[in-house]
Amino acid sequence: MFNELKLTADRPVYVQVKDYIKGLIAKGALQPDQRLPSTRELAGLLAVSRNSVISAYEALEEEGYIYAVSGQGSFVAPDAAALASAADTVPPWKVDWLERLNGGARLAVELDHMKRRKRGIRAEKGTISFTSIAPDEKLFDLDHVKRAFLDRMAIEGNVLLNYGYAKGYKPLIDVLLQYMERKGVGLAGKDMLITSGFTEGLDIVLSSIGGKPGGAVICENPTHHTAIKNLRMHGFEITGIPMEQDGMDLKGLEKALAQRPYDCAYLVPSYHNPTGIVTSAEKRLAMLEMFARYRVPVIEDGFNEELRYSGSHVAPLIAMAGQGNSVVYLGSFSKVLFPGMRVGWVLADRELVDVLESVKRARSIHTSTLDQSVLYQYLQNGHLDKYLKKARAEYKRKYEWTKACCERFIPYSRLSGSGGLHLFVEFAEGFDVWELLEACSRQGVIFTPGDMFYADGGGRNTMRIGFSRVSDEDIGKGIRIIGETAAGMM
Amino acid sequence: MFNELKLTADRPVYVQVKDYIKGLIAKGALQPDQRLPSTRELAGLLAVSRNSVISAYEALEEEGYIYAVSGQGSFVAPDAAALASAADTVPPWKVDWLERLNGGARLAVELDHMKRRKRGIRAEKGTISFTSIAPDEKLFDLDHVKRAFLDRMAIEGNVLLNYGYAKGYKPLIDVLLQYMERKGVGLAGKDMLITSGFTEGLDIVLSSIGGKPGGAVICENPTHHTAIKNLRMHGFEITGIPMEQDGMDLKGLEKALAQRPYDCAYLVPSYHNPTGIVTSAEKRLAMLEMFARYRVPVIEDGFNEELRYSGSHVAPLIAMAGQGNSVVYLGSFSKVLFPGMRVGWVLADRELVDVLESVKRARSIHTSTLDQSVLYQYLQNGHLDKYLKKARAEYKRKYEWTKACCERFIPYSRLSGSGGLHLFVEFAEGFDVWELLEACSRQGVIFTPGDMFYADGGGRNTMRIGFSRVSDEDIGKGIRIIGETAAGMM
Repeated sequence: MFNELKLTADRPVYVQVKDYIKGLIAKGALQPDQRLPSTRELAGLLAVSRNSVISAYEALEEEGYIYAVSGQGSFVAPDAAALASAADTVPPWKVDWLERLNGGARLAVELDHMKRRKRGIRAEKGTISFTSIAPDEKLFDLDHVKRAFLDRMAIEGNVLLNYGYAKGYKPLIDVLLQYMERKGVGLAGKDMLITSGFTEGLDIVLSSIGGKPGGAVICENPTHHTAIKNLRMHGFEITGIPMEQDGMDLKGLEKALAQRPYDCAYLVPSYHNPTGIVTSAEKRLAMLEMFARYRVPVIEDGFNEELRYSGSHVAPLIAMAGQGNSVVYLGSFSKVLFPGMRVGWVLADRELVDVLESVKRARSIHTSTLDQSVLYQYLQNGHLDKYLKKARAEYKRKYEWTKACCERFIPYSRLSGSGGLHLFVEFAEGFDVWELLEACSRQGVIFTPGDMFYADGGGRNTMRIGFSRVSDEDIGKGIRIIGETAAGMM
Repeated sequence: MFNELKLTADRPVYVQVKDYIKGLIAKGALQPDQRLPSTRELAGLLAVSRNSVISAYEALEEEGYIYAVSGQGSFVAPDAAALASAADTVPPWKVDWLERLNGGARLAVELDHMKRRKRGIRAEKGTISFTSIAPDEKLFDLDHVKRAFLDRMAIEGNVLLNYGYAKGYKPLIDVLLQYMERKGVGLAGKDMLITSGFTEGLDIVLSSIGGKPGGAVICENPTHHTAIKNLRMHGFEITGIPMEQDGMDLKGLEKALAQRPYDCAYLVPSYHNPTGIVTSAEKRLAMLEMFARYRVPVIEDGFNEELRYSGSHVAPLIAMAGQGNSVVYLGSFSKVLFPGMRVGWVLADRELVDVLESVKRARSIHTSTLDQSVLYQYLQNGHLDKYLKKARAEYKRKYEWTKACCERFIPYSRLSGSGGLHLFVEFAEGFDVWELLEACSRQGVIFTPGDMFYADGGGRNTMRIGFSRVSDEDIGKGIRIIGETAAGMM
């Protein structure tokens, strides 16, 4: 025994030693409770390094084949033979997992634009990419984040590392409630749930009211592609209302509302994704009045509200709705602060939040307490305002530069975007942006085709230009290439 | 103007000043683009502090009623009148949110044991509580966590704070794949998704294959109550197979499998929650053979696998299944390391993981990169083994002490639990544990009644005793009270 091991080059030596011992156990050459050679001894017998044998014994113990007795060595476990013959006992059958998926999972794959993008046109090294609307990490004030972490850990580190509450980290909730109150929201009858970012908030709300036959939602067209995906995954039919420069086409909205009942509306009133449009105060009021008349509650996406660059701010819908409980507000700092920290919030009717809390608990127990408490301490240390000032100044500069470049070079029929981290370009009807993308990508420039933001298959003549992570020089160069290529195609 | 403000004591002064200005705007007493008095001036006119006026102006600007021009003061915004009259324009209608919920959300509330517990018997200060199976935070090695955070931040802090990948943080995935390989899992054809803890992993899998008419799952009875909740939320009918001291009753399993098809099995083979039973190697193999024969894939909950206190380890089912792809393994360090950091993993068939990745992206984009990268660095710094050694020694001591107390004082008909952080007690048929709980809670001792772990309404004669966060002295005192009270009830 212990001399017929033939090593091959394709796997680590310790794995081969491990499998060799397993084979001896399966054949009965090693019996239950029999002592194995010492690691030094076996290394000599098999002509392998002692470290390989040590690793093999460790792995065998982990897997339950052998056990160690302190000072006496390693022994074959009583169950080892049964284990070693598992391969014979358990037929290695193959499940066709794809066959077993439900419609929601299939839609998640079909509408997964990250994958579609990967499979399609790719950002090679050196490509000028306008596809991202994530913040520019060079702006992050890392030292303040570290400070916040250490401060909070010093106060209650052990508690933070243990289980928290589904509703969220109480000190953070209190700070965010004040933050929303300063935006003019009346908090009476309302409550807040912390979620793992905006997306989880939206998905929790939809998974609580969705999945019913005939479910229908009304929203802006185009709109946030993640929302389209999640609405469809929860079985909602989507009616999109065209966007004018100051928000939805109100006549279209009224017509749609009169035609059929809707479960809710999903709206991005500020720095709308993808168009960047800010819905005017008048339109906000008119919309709210209509939704009240037709009894359609509203899910408000507070996206990018912090990135206003000029002009007076417009109050969120949930503030305008006053004492009513019909608006569910979804907030997040992801586009402003640190998206890697997954923290968002749902501000809504107290009874509804109580239900969402139970759904959140069922889905993921609670959001990372580390993320929540670091964000809390960061806000508490007074860093948000300073950071926002810096970030806003930088993004505003880039926004104006990108806008100027678009105006100069791109033969658009409409350009929109009053803030945030992107602009939206519409070409004349019939223009094919996918063709433009292909031509541009050959010249090292890519962007996001707008059709993925349309619920109705439209928008092939539109594109989104995210500028937050592109240098000034590349913005100038890239927009010029897009513009000249587009002009050449016309 | 600016003199008829009557202050009341019920709200902050600045809010009253703010509402007063809004009133003037609504009445038309203040016109668009009209300049407001300086903060100093208005403070004098209204006889309030200047700080209150400053806060009021800040809030009004936030809400879009006024705008500031640097060096010139504050002005009424063009939209302000429309905004101020919002209360008249938008009727504050009330949505009956509870009426609009779907069945899943209703079940989430109904099966939310945290809330039921809160509404029922509560832990007063000084109560000896055996309800928790969370780790003891006094054991946490906080300094190593801080070290890991600072180490990782120094290497790539800015990148970590920006968006990550839905699949997870690559370095962590690589480490966890190795970790699973050491447990004997063949990785060919498999892949891993990082989730926000075990619960999200389970929920993502169930939400991908659930919700179909006639959905059915087979599992141990009793079993993890979160799993029961989530299985039911995803529309599965649950068949529970009674537990013997070494795992499921195999005859019962075969009978159930022969009766109807199942979408999958959900199993907790090691330190089963709530019974603490470790399924023997023979039973694992026999079960796998049966599941293969009936073509039922398995969701394996790797719960507490790290907390073995003695004897040889038994390989997880996914290792025994060899080259097959029928086992989906859900892992987490939450009961061992830091549950506040929400990190778990799904190890499964590569094609399935590719789908789960899309579902994860739709639900929450990705798991906190902070949590993932700190955990990675903590493992990389070699702290897991040292910590596990310390934690295991401490929990083992407590486990043995709790077991000895149960054996001495509790008139049970069966006591189980071979590791982990809890024991499970069964009394004679007909004994009412809820009655016992009420009597004990009057004496300052509480525990978890076992019926919540039964999918079939049984288990009123059972209880779970979690000892991880109870002091030795309180364990002795509490178990004695439980035992003597139970004896008195018999």
